[in-house]
Amino acid sequence: MGEFELIRRFFDRQGPAAPGVATGIGDDCAVLSPTPGSQWLVSTDMLVEGRHFLSTVEPERLGHKALAVNLSDLAACGATPRAFFLALSLPRADARFLEGFARGLFALADAHGIALAGGDTTAGPLNVCITVMGEAPQGQALLRSGARAGDELWVSGTLGDARLALEVFRGTRSLPGDAFAQVRRAMELPQPRVALGQALRGIASSAIDVSDGLMGDLGHVLRASGVGATIDFEALPRSAVLAGQDLALQQECLLAGGDDYELVFTASPQQHQAVRDAAARAGTPVRRVGRIRTEPGLEVLDPHGAPLALRFASFDHFKS
Amino acid sequence: MGEFELIRRFFDRQGPAAPGVATGIGDDCAVLSPTPGSQWLVSTDMLVEGRHFLSTVEPERLGHKALAVNLSDLAACGATPRAFFLALSLPRADARFLEGFARGLFALADAHGIALAGGDTTAGPLNVCITVMGEAPQGQALLRSGARAGDELWVSGTLGDARLALEVFRGTRSLPGDAFAQVRRAMELPQPRVALGQALRGIASSAIDVSDGLMGDLGHVLRASGVGATIDFEALPRSAVLAGQDLALQQECLLAGGDDYELVFTASPQQHQAVRDAAARAGTPVRRVGRIRTEPGLEVLDPHGAPLALRFASFDHFKS
Repeated sequence: MGEFELIRRFFDRQGPAAPGVATGIGDDCAVLSPTPGSQWLVSTDMLVEGRHFLSTVEPERLGHKALAVNLSDLAACGATPRAFFLALSLPRADARFLEGFARGLFALADAHGIALAGGDTTAGPLNVCITVMGEAPQGQALLRSGARAGDELWVSGTLGDARLALEVFRGTRSLPGDAFAQVRRAMELPQPRVALGQALRGIASSAIDVSDGLMGDLGHVLRASGVGATIDFEALPRSAVLAGQDLALQQECLLAGGDDYELVFTASPQQHQAVRDAAARAGTPVRRVGRIRTEPGLEVLDPHGAPLALRFASFDHFKS
Repeated sequence: MGEFELIRRFFDRQGPAAPGVATGIGDDCAVLSPTPGSQWLVSTDMLVEGRHFLSTVEPERLGHKALAVNLSDLAACGATPRAFFLALSLPRADARFLEGFARGLFALADAHGIALAGGDTTAGPLNVCITVMGEAPQGQALLRSGARAGDELWVSGTLGDARLALEVFRGTRSLPGDAFAQVRRAMELPQPRVALGQALRGIASSAIDVSDGLMGDLGHVLRASGVGATIDFEALPRSAVLAGQDLALQQECLLAGGDDYELVFTASPQQHQAVRDAAARAGTPVRRVGRIRTEPGLEVLDPHGAPLALRFASFDHFKS
């Protein structure tokens, strides 16, 4: 199977053009038509075998996750997904792998109405690089820099299950089969909070998605906004499986786990009900977990209001 | 050196925002503001060590080439470069490599007024994936599908030197030092024909850049346009170094060499002088090398007008 046949067979779905995509796969560039009055939001993520996914992962789940982590960046900005570009390096043109990968990729793409508009394939060590593009009305993108002292701090979904699954894969923990299947789904099939992000436009003051761990990612928001935060540890949303683990592991998974792809966002207390309504419209659970303050830094409080002593840093690809 | 320091030190050039880039590096997405009435042209290319570049290449030249091959896709569509995104997988955070890579990358970016607006870095086998975005006025992008019977066929610059250099690296040929340095520059420092592509908007009927070899890439244009072509082999522009090689090697390098990043384009004979004027404005030599015909297929004629018998296919990453 050659390069062009590979693209034709697995990735070039001739069909009606998607909104915003005037010319898709098959020219030197894709041609995209912006909605008048909109801005484009663009993000790129590269996934490497053994670092972002295990070599044993089902190809269908890898296809899902490669796009999910990119859609999560659009979600964090409140963007409406439009088009994505896939660059794929593969040791060989393996039909079983490609068929599964494409199935997972396109199932998620279709669920979010985003079109594969171009890409590149080459032989080489397995590497999946996706660039996503979405739109938001001029000036309405959610950024990291908008958090203000007094804002409420919110988290979507639950945190920590992906990290718990990783610990089981690493052999440091064991779980019953059902519980493991559940946390493994969190790791391998994250659901990007695209609908919530869009629903929060004009309501949230800042947002980020949790990819490297809550403390690290929230730290980016605090620095960009020039503020600090306190988090109520007990309020952090967690699954029943994680809630059944010892406290040290819960802390590590909830605060520094990473790979969650939930949204952490801030909003004025006046927007409290608007946040709840937006979450209901998006069908996504949200929970208030803390507050933004003037004083820099990030404090995590125990049920008695005393700061927890924490030792872990967020994930760094060149350190861990 | 951690991931964030690496980005800050080598890639995040705080400065005035580039045209079209409202928010660059440092948020979940870049925010781009389209020029009213424009379309966005987007392309992505992934470069893998040992396949797209030799492991011995100077980092500065690799930085240049990784962006150049992407800018060449914008050139082929007649786009004005706006923003690019860099995803980089590196075995380790090597300051000498990164310093050189960034120098070559930004020198070319600055020459074409394109801003690095975001990206991703990770540890892993060396892989450079760049996504470029440019703009063209609505409906004016040059596509592969516009060639018409009777159009003249043009090529910019010279073809074949990059392939000749590769043969020297492979040890199948040898060249004197000066000649080798010249063809090696063609391979390692290709100059994307961005100014020519823009100058040809409204003049050329179709265009493509030569990345996989003239016959293969022109074949894409012919299929997309539903036409055929004849090429005058003697008219194909070549360097004095390549012209000094035997005919079989000249044929291979000129027709199936690849890695040229010159533009092949078509235009009505009525546009002949307009093409020459556009090339002069862009400061890029162009040469008429053949003609588009109704009958499908691609014929290469010798100086007596007889078809050459040719045996080679274009480059395929999963076959060669």
